[in-house]
Amino acid sequence: MDQSGVKITLAEFAEISDQRLPFAALMGLQLEQICPDHVLMRAVYRDEFLRPGGTIAGPVMMGLADAAMYALVLSRVGPVELAVTTSLNINFLRKPAPGDVLARATGLKFGKRLVIGEISLYSESSPDDLVAHATATYSIPPTS
Amino acid sequence: MDQSGVKITLAEFAEISDQRLPFAALMGLQLEQICPDHVLMRAVYRDEFLRPGGTIAGPVMMGLADAAMYALVLSRVGPVELAVTTSLNINFLRKPAPGDVLARATGLKFGKRLVIGEISLYSESSPDDLVAHATATYSIPPTS
Amino acid sequence: MDQSGVKITLAEFAEISDQRLPFAALMGLQLEQICPDHVLMRAVYRDEFLRPGGTIAGPVMMGLADAAMYALVLSRVGPVELAVTTSLNINFLRKPAPGDVLARATGLKFGKRLVIGEISLYSESSPDDLVAHATATYSIPPTS
Amino acid sequence: MDQSGVKITLAEFAEISDQRLPFAALMGLQLEQICPDHVLMRAVYRDEFLRPGGTIAGPVMMGLADAAMYALVLSRVGPVELAVTTSLNINFLRKPAPGDVLARATGLKFGKRLVIGEISLYSESSPDDLVAHATATYSIPPTS
Repeated sequence: MDQSGVKITLAEFAEISDQRLPFAALMGLQLEQICPDHVLMRAVYRDEFLRPGGTIAGPVMMGLADAAMYALVLSRVGPVELAVTTSLNINFLRKPAPGDVLARATGLKFGKRLVIGEISLYSESSPDDLVAHATATYSIPPTS
Repeated sequence: MDQSGVKITLAEFAEISDQRLPFAALMGLQLEQICPDHVLMRAVYRDEFLRPGGTIAGPVMMGLADAAMYALVLSRVGPVELAVTTSLNINFLRKPAPGDVLARATGLKFGKRLVIGEISLYSESSPDDLVAHATATYSIPPTS
Repeated sequence: MDQSGVKITLAEFAEISDQRLPFAALMGLQLEQICPDHVLMRAVYRDEFLRPGGTIAGPVMMGLADAAMYALVLSRVGPVELAVTTSLNINFLRKPAPGDVLARATGLKFGKRLVIGEISLYSESSPDDLVAHATATYSIPPTS
Repeated sequence: MDQSGVKITLAEFAEISDQRLPFAALMGLQLEQICPDHVLMRAVYRDEFLRPGGTIAGPVMMGLADAAMYALVLSRVGPVELAVTTSLNINFLRKPAPGDVLARATGLKFGKRLVIGEISLYSESSPDDLVAHATATYSIPPTS
């Protein structure tokens, strides 16, 4: 652990994601930043993301939000792969136009058993207008 | 509309899904039942669904829940493709073993502007133990 | 503990509520039933519950839902007063007319650390039409 | 409407609250600030707020969050008293010690039909540590 409190590198997360989270590749998810107070994850646009109306489907945003939160948790507690989502709440705010979507996850509480965070999603082309906002809780398994 | 109040057939939903929701195919989603009081949707298992621990990833369950709710909405208001999720809340209850996951969506309120429903998710092998439970709100666009 | 798995009586809950939850008295909350699969709690109507439009205010329903869930938790884990809500999600479905509101709480998962449940709220005069639906998670403190 | 976009004054909100929201008085709620980008509401401490463990009960925080959101909505759409909560999600983060609790509500989306906002709750004695975080959706009735 360095002084910043960050306990995982981008490369370490990519390795977990590549080998153990095949769903992330299906959804074009890429972790871009791990900072002491947030992580930033990108869903690289594919035409398969579209839904009627020509905007990006909700499940893409939910998967992106959940994966960003997973990266945030691992960045703070270390590579505890078995950390799992216990709940997620999302509000869809604007319909995202075709293009990459970014998710910025920040912590609301880092407890021993539960980590609670907030995830802001936006289109790369319009970073000031959130397309969705989520909160999620992860459960940290007891250390053996 | 038939007397049961069901306003869309399985074939009509499949056509919308096939042509307009490519994400559903990525996730192996198949609508199985449209009944007056519920719809039943299946996520056909693929190895890409797995996450660390050998269980099915949360985003699969969220996508399945959202798609089941979309089918419920269309079954009641007709093929209003532009109906969109405004919010979704999910609690993950048990870690689903590899295998198909089913989602049963029922309505809590069918309003003119908002439809609110409840979605129960379970593994086909263990229908009595919910693996997740969600509620979701869809917004119905004004008829022009 | 009797064979049904119920670990607290109505009288025991009333004692905790009377002595340790003054807010419950402010809101006219009364636990009516503790059954193996659910509890039923009532908010006895007071004019102070009204909001503009002449219907019952949301905070009354949220407080009732949370208290019903607390009773459900204690009925299953015993009088662990320090069990606390970690999250609550509520959808308001219909505007309740003046009158008592009832909340029926059932469990979705009883884990060692977390209990997740579902709460259905309805007016006594119209038990078939839910006025609100909530899900909530309680955290159980480790036994010392 | 002044140039800031604020459509209601503290005095106007207090009048609605005093005359039409008796529950707010029960809970000691006072609106302190209406700003273009947020509102701030206070729950003035009373011993009745306590729960087992000597901390402030969840229903107080939920009522405070909901009322702050109501004030935010009215500050932006004007005195539309019939605006109602359609959903609220809250995560409890830390147990608030006895004392006033403050809620800061900000908007995530101001639509014609729905307003979605975020509410941060903290103890006056420790403004940097959130005790709870909520999101809520209000429905705005059609103008007649």
